[in-house]
Amino acid sequence: MRTSGADGTGGGSGAGGGGGTGGTGGGYGAGGRRVGRPRAQARPDSGLSPRQELLAAAAELFTTRGYTATTTRAIAERAGMRQASMYHYVGGKEDLLAELLEGTVTPSLALAHALLADAARPAEQRLWELCRADVALLCAGPYNLGALYLLPEVRSERFTPFRAARDELRAAYGALLAATAAGGALGPQELGLRADLLFALIEGVILTPRTHPAPAFAAATADAALRLTGCRPA
Amino acid sequence: MRTSGADGTGGGSGAGGGGGTGGTGGGYGAGGRRVGRPRAQARPDSGLSPRQELLAAAAELFTTRGYTATTTRAIAERAGMRQASMYHYVGGKEDLLAELLEGTVTPSLALAHALLADAARPAEQRLWELCRADVALLCAGPYNLGALYLLPEVRSERFTPFRAARDELRAAYGALLAATAAGGALGPQELGLRADLLFALIEGVILTPRTHPAPAFAAATADAALRLTGCRPA
Repeated sequence: MRTSGADGTGGGSGAGGGGGTGGTGGGYGAGGRRVGRPRAQARPDSGLSPRQELLAAAAELFTTRGYTATTTRAIAERAGMRQASMYHYVGGKEDLLAELLEGTVTPSLALAHALLADAARPAEQRLWELCRADVALLCAGPYNLGALYLLPEVRSERFTPFRAARDELRAAYGALLAATAAGGALGPQELGLRADLLFALIEGVILTPRTHPAPAFAAATADAALRLTGCRPA
Repeated sequence: MRTSGADGTGGGSGAGGGGGTGGTGGGYGAGGRRVGRPRAQARPDSGLSPRQELLAAAAELFTTRGYTATTTRAIAERAGMRQASMYHYVGGKEDLLAELLEGTVTPSLALAHALLADAARPAEQRLWELCRADVALLCAGPYNLGALYLLPEVRSERFTPFRAARDELRAAYGALLAATAAGGALGPQELGLRADLLFALIEGVILTPRTHPAPAFAAATADAALRLTGCRPA
C-alpha cells in the first residue's frame, strides 16, 4: 500500500502530539500559552520536519474539530511551536488545507499519467492498478482527509490547483476506461457516465467505515470498479 | 424521482430567500437588524411553513458557508424571521442539521423495509429500485446535503439517530443483496464487503458533480450497482 508523504502523516507515529513532554523548544507560559523559539529541525521523537508536523497537526484538527473551528494557533500548539514560528514554515491555514488535499490526489495523478503512457499493457490491468493505488492513498494515514473535499471553503480560488488535479484524475480514469475493450464499445455519453460512476465508487471509500483490512479492501474495490464499468464479468 | 419533504427543499422555489420584500412580519430596525413577530403560517410567496423555511435556509447556509460558520441568527434572517422567533419552531442549529441529515436517509430506509418485506418479487429488482430511489433522494434539492455527512459535529450524541438510520440503511442493502442469487453465493465476509462497496457507490454520488440528467443518472447508478455486486452481467 502506498502512503502519501505529502499528507504529512506518512511518518507513522508522529501525529504531532504536541504535548508538554517534547524535549525541544517550549513549555507553557504563565497563562497556559505555549511559548518557544522557531525550530529549524525535526524533533527527534517524531522524525518529522516542522512543516510535516504542522501538516500532521492540521490533518488531525481539521478532521476532528473541523476546518472552520481550528485556529492557526491551535495548529501551531499541536505541532509544538508558537503561532509566530509557524509562519516560518507555512503560509497559514489555507495553505495547510491545500497541501493536505493535493496530497490525496497528486500521487494518484502521477501514477495515472504513467499508466496511460504504458500502452503496451492491457488497459484493464492498468485501470485496476490505478483504482487499487488510489483507494490505498485515500485510506492511508490516521485521518480521513477526503472528509475535507466537500468543505465550502474548497470552492474558493486558493484551491483551484486541488480541484484541477482532481478533475484531471477523473479525466485520466475516463481515458484509461476508454482504452479498455468494454469502454471502447461505449458511446461517448455512456463512457463519461461510467467514468464518473467509477470515480464515485473510488472516492466513495472516504464515506465508508474503515472496518476492512486495508490492502484487501483496496484490491476488492478495484475488482468492484472493473465489474461496475463492465470490464470484468460478474 | 422522489424528493424529500423532510429536507425542507421539496417546495421548489422557496429556498427562504429572506429578503426585505416579504409581505409579512418584519422589516429592518435602525441597526439593520431584522425585527418582527413570530409567524405561525406559511408566507404566501414560498408556500413553506416557517419550520420548512428554516430548514431550507439552514440547508443553503450549511452547504454554502459551512455549518460552523453559520449562526442561528443568520439562519433566522435568511428565513425572514427574528432569531428569537426561530425558537418557536426549532430547537436550534443542531436540530436543523439533524433533521436535514435524517431527511437524506429515512425515506430510503422506509423504502428498504418495504422492499425487504416484498419477498415475492426478485431481489435483484428490489435492490435496483432501492439504489435508484436512494440516489434520486441524495441528488434531490438544490443543496448537496450529503456534504454534511462528514462534519466532525455529526459524531456527537445528538446525531445518534441519524447515524443509526444510516447504519440500518447500509444493513438493509446487505440484506437485499444477500437475497439475490449472486449475493447468496458469497461467503459472509465477501458479502459484507460487497454491500459496503455498493453503499460507497450510492453515497459516492454526493462527491460527483451534478452534470448528468437526474432521473437517468439515478437509473444508471442503479445499473452500475448491480454490476458492481455481481447481480448483473457486464
